[in-house]
Amino acid sequence: MMLETTIAAIRPADETAMAAARELHGRLTKPAGSLGALEELSVRLAGLAGACPPPLPEPAAVAIFAGDHGVHAQGVSPWPQEVTGQMIGNFLAGGAVVNAFARQAGASVTVVDVGVAIPLPAQPTAEAAILDPSVPRLVVASVRRGTRDLAVTAALTRDEALAAVQTGIRIADELIDAGAGILLSGDMGIGNTTPAAALIAAFTGADALDATGRGTGVDDPTYAHKVAVVRAALARHAPDPADPLGVLAAVGGLEHAALAGLILGAAARRTPVLLDGVIAVSAALAAAAFAPDAVGAMVAGHRSAEPGATAALRHLGLDPLIDLGLRLGEGTGALLALPVVTGAVRVLHEVATFDSAGVAEK
Amino acid sequence: MMLETTIAAIRPADETAMAAARELHGRLTKPAGSLGALEELSVRLAGLAGACPPPLPEPAAVAIFAGDHGVHAQGVSPWPQEVTGQMIGNFLAGGAVVNAFARQAGASVTVVDVGVAIPLPAQPTAEAAILDPSVPRLVVASVRRGTRDLAVTAALTRDEALAAVQTGIRIADELIDAGAGILLSGDMGIGNTTPAAALIAAFTGADALDATGRGTGVDDPTYAHKVAVVRAALARHAPDPADPLGVLAAVGGLEHAALAGLILGAAARRTPVLLDGVIAVSAALAAAAFAPDAVGAMVAGHRSAEPGATAALRHLGLDPLIDLGLRLGEGTGALLALPVVTGAVRVLHEVATFDSAGVAEK
Repeated sequence: MMLETTIAAIRPADETAMAAARELHGRLTKPAGSLGALEELSVRLAGLAGACPPPLPEPAAVAIFAGDHGVHAQGVSPWPQEVTGQMIGNFLAGGAVVNAFARQAGASVTVVDVGVAIPLPAQPTAEAAILDPSVPRLVVASVRRGTRDLAVTAALTRDEALAAVQTGIRIADELIDAGAGILLSGDMGIGNTTPAAALIAAFTGADALDATGRGTGVDDPTYAHKVAVVRAALARHAPDPADPLGVLAAVGGLEHAALAGLILGAAARRTPVLLDGVIAVSAALAAAAFAPDAVGAMVAGHRSAEPGATAALRHLGLDPLIDLGLRLGEGTGALLALPVVTGAVRVLHEVATFDSAGVAEK
Repeated sequence: MMLETTIAAIRPADETAMAAARELHGRLTKPAGSLGALEELSVRLAGLAGACPPPLPEPAAVAIFAGDHGVHAQGVSPWPQEVTGQMIGNFLAGGAVVNAFARQAGASVTVVDVGVAIPLPAQPTAEAAILDPSVPRLVVASVRRGTRDLAVTAALTRDEALAAVQTGIRIADELIDAGAGILLSGDMGIGNTTPAAALIAAFTGADALDATGRGTGVDDPTYAHKVAVVRAALARHAPDPADPLGVLAAVGGLEHAALAGLILGAAARRTPVLLDGVIAVSAALAAAAFAPDAVGAMVAGHRSAEPGATAALRHLGLDPLIDLGLRLGEGTGALLALPVVTGAVRVLHEVATFDSAGVAEK
């Protein structure tokens, strides 16, 4: 019901607000079109908010969904599975790259255990501290302790996938209720580029080879094996892209499902969601399959070095803001792109018009 | 003499600091290489500073050099020349895009009149306010009220070009003395993409067609005329790329020469200079011709939509951080890239090592 209500609340962009933003851009003290992709981005955000100018995307909140993966048993990653939980400890201690970038951007960090293999102790969080950029917090909403191995069976039941999606929606609502003006997607899960590749192949029709990358850095034999695992999983489960919950259950991960929920929840609240890398865009494909208009809330933060990310972005019709060969995840690429999004909106708020500034036009 | 002293102070990168930065990257809690271009950027900045980690590039100071151009008489721009001075008024009132982006980034804005056609009243600036992000300031250091028309004669005498270069060096010194950790190049000058195209063609050997763009947006006949003006100027003056002062005098502009000085001044002080668009990179070619090791201080902020910018970046061996089709100038592209530079350095300061965080390696 919660998923259905959320989907039903997602509306198309407001054309009137978009037209107003385009018209305003023509009057600001700069040559028409000289801000390139920032102008269209600000127009899209006006359409999402239904207002020109749209609100500044502040404060920003990163939500890192973490889970483990049964397919790790197939040897698709060189990293031990316990690193997922260890990195959560690092996030909560403020020692990871995502923390450094979040401090710089003034963004809060919420880590959500949707399915880490080891039990994590929940932290009580004061309501007022939800968006505190100086204190990362942990929400425990574990659906199960890691997915099943998608190479041998469905990774999740439909109910488990639904529970993770609804956790994502809940987190979006909670952050937006606390005042967040933009959500940033983050993820952690050793092995999670394998389900991401399977999701991308399932939703876009891309071949397993084109959807699969080297993740955190696998050697040639492991990469070939990873592609074979993705290809075999697609053949075994034959996921139907018109049934996104079924696709998430068959070949997804708990953090992928939760991220799809986060995106849907943000779209239903007409709040932008800044996508990080390949995990985020694989989840975005699921969100778009649930509700095509959810794409209006998505901003592609960066182009991950993973080839599947590019296939997914093309399918969604999104151009990324940053393209620097990052393949870290955690939300780091989204955080790097945040000032571009804020800057694009700020122009509509703060820049003088030719008329008001007494500047001649051509 | 000041130019010669500055050039003599520019040294190659410190290989020991660069090796230390590479080694540190291998111990931080992230897969090796997963931060893509940010890792090499941080290594370069360690080499520039001669320290690992290099200092955080804070506070940031934008220097906007403004000038007018005799070649405007050839009809190379659809904008009236008085817009240069009017936009300076807009900068000082805080109404331009560069102001909005600078406020967001916490960067100060210094506007330097090196050759605007109309007289501008200098502002007294308290020493303490030089890096105040809330108060744009104007420095009047006018060499002459606009260049001569490079289509009919040399734009500047060698002495005039030298005076502008030395103004740029002086501004770099002043900002760094006041505590700036990074300088950002900005420019304003109706018609200034024409000398930029001529400089790029002169220094890179590119054809006038490949070096010339549409600037603030010229129509097809004006564009063809602009290319012809650049081509004729190169044929008339036959500038020698081994004589950068001669090139700047023949086909440059006062803001281009001053920006070359800013870059040289920053390099001599081992301080990074974040380059904006096509005007900045044309000036950077001059700086590199004066002192090849000055390239070590340059960070390419973005890839301008102007084709000459790409030719210049290739010649300098620099990859831009942002590529969003901007063609505004003012320093806007550099400001958008600033958080990427800061983030790249911050990683070396703040991210935990595998050892310290208790995270297993692969």
